[in-house]
Amino acid sequence: MLFARPCRTRVGVVVLVPDGGDPDGFRADPRGQRGRLWRHPEADSALRADGFGENPLYHCLVAEILPGPGELQEPCVVGYGLYYFIYSTWKGRSIYLEDIYVMPEYRGQGIGSKIIKTVAKVALDQGCSQFRLAVLDWNKTAMDLYKALGAQDLTEAEGWHSFCFKGEAMRELAGR
Amino acid sequence: MLFARPCRTRVGVVVLVPDGGDPDGFRADPRGQRGRLWRHPEADSALRADGFGENPLYHCLVAEILPGPGELQEPCVVGYGLYYFIYSTWKGRSIYLEDIYVMPEYRGQGIGSKIIKTVAKVALDQGCSQFRLAVLDWNKTAMDLYKALGAQDLTEAEGWHSFCFKGEAMRELAGR
Repeated sequence: MLFARPCRTRVGVVVLVPDGGDPDGFRADPRGQRGRLWRHPEADSALRADGFGENPLYHCLVAEILPGPGELQEPCVVGYGLYYFIYSTWKGRSIYLEDIYVMPEYRGQGIGSKIIKTVAKVALDQGCSQFRLAVLDWNKTAMDLYKALGAQDLTEAEGWHSFCFKGEAMRELAGR
Repeated sequence: MLFARPCRTRVGVVVLVPDGGDPDGFRADPRGQRGRLWRHPEADSALRADGFGENPLYHCLVAEILPGPGELQEPCVVGYGLYYFIYSTWKGRSIYLEDIYVMPEYRGQGIGSKIIKTVAKVALDQGCSQFRLAVLDWNKTAMDLYKALGAQDLTEAEGWHSFCFKGEAMRELAGR
């Protein structure tokens, strides 16, 4: 069980999971936690193959709660950030933070900010000049957090709209 | 010189440019044309390294005008689509069409639609279940085209906003 009290957290890069399962790696895998992904257990094997194979399609940061001095618990994952690299012909290599998640009982402790700050460090280390993310307009808490951390709302400021061709539309376009 | 009359076009995957320059590959490189990129000549070597190295950060489709029967001109590039792969924890591997460009004198001939249809084929061939792109709200022509081709405006329909942490914000976040 997770303990809901103020506690030390650390944010680290997820450990790659070798075939057969490294317990350390597995523990650091957000897919085993009560995150959004948990609602899609059927996607689990695809997510594992896509993110932890030889050419990963995404990368993960996880926020772990560390046990107090003398406590016997293992560190446990209470949040994560899932990102990949994108490309801008104006700005070069960039990072896109696809998902950021903190378990409800651990919100308001700065864990989301720590994840975002760590993404910024990864981005700089990897030679990126920006990192992007998307948020739904009803999620004022997230929007306010990102703005407070220095992000710009490009939809508001410049009028960018996201478009998507979904499965049926794609097949029709492709004539299949 | 380009000729501004109805003409046959084909849309193909760009040829990789080997070191030293393969003339065929170079011709198919949109960076040599009057595309948006042309305004950023200083970015040229970075774009070449990023897109045409061993682990390309993006991929290109180019629209070429074919010479008529008996004409001596080489095919020339009049438009392009620049895309890369992204990842959705709900939908898996996806394509993001970062740039789509058709030279002004070749617009209205269906070249943009051909590029989009070819992206849809590439996406399906690569096991993607969707492809995405972004458009500025003042660009009604593009918005209408994408909608006519079956795309959904996710900003309008679901309220998605794009956020960006730019250089200074990232450095501040990272404490550098």
